[in-house]
Amino acid sequence: MHEEQRRRATALLQSRQIDAALFASPASVTWLTGFAPPPQTGPHPFAGAPPLVWWDGERFTLLVVDGLAAAAAPFATASDGRVLTYLGYTIDAPIDGARHLRMLLESLWAEAGGVRRIRRVGVEGWALPAAVGGVLAAKIGGDWVTIDHWLHLLRMVKTDEEVAKLRANFRLTDIAHAAARRAVGVGAREIDVWLAARSAVEAAAGQRVPMGNDCVVGYRQENIGGWPLDYALRPGDSLIVDLSTILHGYWSDSCATYVAGEVSARQQAIHTIVSQALALGASLLRPGAVTGDIDRRLRQFIADAGYPVYPHHTGHGVGVTGHEAPRIVPYGQDVLAPGMVILLEPGIYFPGETGVRLEDAFLITDDGALQLTTHDKALP
Amino acid sequence: MHEEQRRRATALLQSRQIDAALFASPASVTWLTGFAPPPQTGPHPFAGAPPLVWWDGERFTLLVVDGLAAAAAPFATASDGRVLTYLGYTIDAPIDGARHLRMLLESLWAEAGGVRRIRRVGVEGWALPAAVGGVLAAKIGGDWVTIDHWLHLLRMVKTDEEVAKLRANFRLTDIAHAAARRAVGVGAREIDVWLAARSAVEAAAGQRVPMGNDCVVGYRQENIGGWPLDYALRPGDSLIVDLSTILHGYWSDSCATYVAGEVSARQQAIHTIVSQALALGASLLRPGAVTGDIDRRLRQFIADAGYPVYPHHTGHGVGVTGHEAPRIVPYGQDVLAPGMVILLEPGIYFPGETGVRLEDAFLITDDGALQLTTHDKALP
Repeated sequence: MHEEQRRRATALLQSRQIDAALFASPASVTWLTGFAPPPQTGPHPFAGAPPLVWWDGERFTLLVVDGLAAAAAPFATASDGRVLTYLGYTIDAPIDGARHLRMLLESLWAEAGGVRRIRRVGVEGWALPAAVGGVLAAKIGGDWVTIDHWLHLLRMVKTDEEVAKLRANFRLTDIAHAAARRAVGVGAREIDVWLAARSAVEAAAGQRVPMGNDCVVGYRQENIGGWPLDYALRPGDSLIVDLSTILHGYWSDSCATYVAGEVSARQQAIHTIVSQALALGASLLRPGAVTGDIDRRLRQFIADAGYPVYPHHTGHGVGVTGHEAPRIVPYGQDVLAPGMVILLEPGIYFPGETGVRLEDAFLITDDGALQLTTHDKALP
Repeated sequence: MHEEQRRRATALLQSRQIDAALFASPASVTWLTGFAPPPQTGPHPFAGAPPLVWWDGERFTLLVVDGLAAAAAPFATASDGRVLTYLGYTIDAPIDGARHLRMLLESLWAEAGGVRRIRRVGVEGWALPAAVGGVLAAKIGGDWVTIDHWLHLLRMVKTDEEVAKLRANFRLTDIAHAAARRAVGVGAREIDVWLAARSAVEAAAGQRVPMGNDCVVGYRQENIGGWPLDYALRPGDSLIVDLSTILHGYWSDSCATYVAGEVSARQQAIHTIVSQALALGASLLRPGAVTGDIDRRLRQFIADAGYPVYPHHTGHGVGVTGHEAPRIVPYGQDVLAPGMVILLEPGIYFPGETGVRLEDAFLITDDGALQLTTHDKALP
């Protein structure tokens, strides 16, 4: 389970003379261990801190509050994996996960050899709680090394295990879009379409599945994106439905634009242009392609057709987060490589009136790209 | 908007000689400002840190990434409120919310008078990122004062504004339970009942509403609690449905136990005892009552009836978190006071077979308690 990720991380940490490290961002924890906390309504209520991964120079240990022990257990079965838990909920004393986590960290520090062996400690300082950082800083008698973005580039090329997780996830967005398409109609509200999509996903998955991103009608000023609200579709209204599902800690993404009732000439025209832009983008995906070049080609295509160019990215990578390297943006200099999973999502918007965005996912292969999303994006 | 909360916090901080403070826990941020980030699928993807509240000794400033500007705007309309944002998403450069947040904090430090005026800085060290804490520690040339739990006791008595938010929220759990009750039947899965409840809530609210907590059938080993999964109800199975909704940053809570098909003699018997325990608890709620006494009375009642005593709390407060002071637990020494909002949730469990838990919410009044939940908890 995620052995390849730990090999990549170890090589990087050792090459930079890091003796021990503490990872705290949810993305890093999932990527390093495969552990994805069950979908919560926020941070675990009895944890002292988010799940952490401690690297003592050799092995990776996952540190979670006891309430997450069952969810974390699979990592303990990896040949090089270990899970340690600390006390969270109790009815016998005030809840104090922070104190119990601190005690666990003290024991791990001692186990790893303490200051005799550890000089440089790497820390994800923008995710780790200050109190935990303070414990380490006091131990080493100085400051830690900030390693917040070190794993980002290592995450770009997906392992076969990750591609399998992502493909299972993209099947859910196909199900979501089929349900959304059926739910669209005059009088349906954004929230109704959203509920249809989510119910279809969770019924199919047999479990709760966190979902983003957008479900907004064209007459909303923020018609590029936003959460579904109490806005009803009127005849001729467009609805942008941009859906991510999170399954086993991995994100999907996808977008289609639906219309209630008659499609206007403008909607038909911009839908055609955006479809062509997406097809153009797909044709450019291959190993060696530079992200900034792809971005430029799609923007130019929209501009040449006489339409306003979308104000957002052309695309992005996806994995343990919904938006990660390589970004397909104007300044992009990343070079595509086999195993990357990329979203492309050109759009044309007339704020307050209508807009169209279409998005597909692609796995970069040895000689091109394989489309992972199969949802129907045609107009009615 | 939440002026009373800021008055209470200011009095506490000043009484402890704190010159400035940085709050980072989502609960503190919502309680101090009324700001509740829109329901997300985790941390804001482009933020440098979670939303923060900076107190410079006089005023409270809410610091959020620009993507949350619209959601945070209402706090700027409070006479003593201010919102400052920093750059998150851009297509013109790599995303670096952390750097922009750091610059904002530097300017606030200078504005507040720097080390000339600020000697003791209070910090929620278990929620604030270590990198932010490092910025402050370097400024003050030493360590900060940890204030993680300082607001907990101040939060116990709800303001009228909070009670209004909570009451709106408890109306949603009533809607959820009505839908769950209708969805229960032989062959229905946990996830199906859950979807019925959540769809009813979000359709009524006209927006996404994060929901916890449990939806588990009696034959599951973890039949006290757990997320809804792909388990189907068989004839005679019980189903514990324990629901929280999060609206405007405030939590509700509630529980009922449903049965598919014929109710067994044991289910009938324990349902009666748990109902009586809940009624007993409700009769004990009044200003001056001590939480540990209430806990003891309910456990004794279950034991006297000859049943195993539940292994969890008897109840808890609710507000910007789902489980907060005053806890109704064996060691409890909190004294109830008007304005507290309390859940009571006794249960009887036979793991792997069946179990019953019933839960209601109460507002402590001048001479007793007012029940806030009205969901039907009777057996069919």
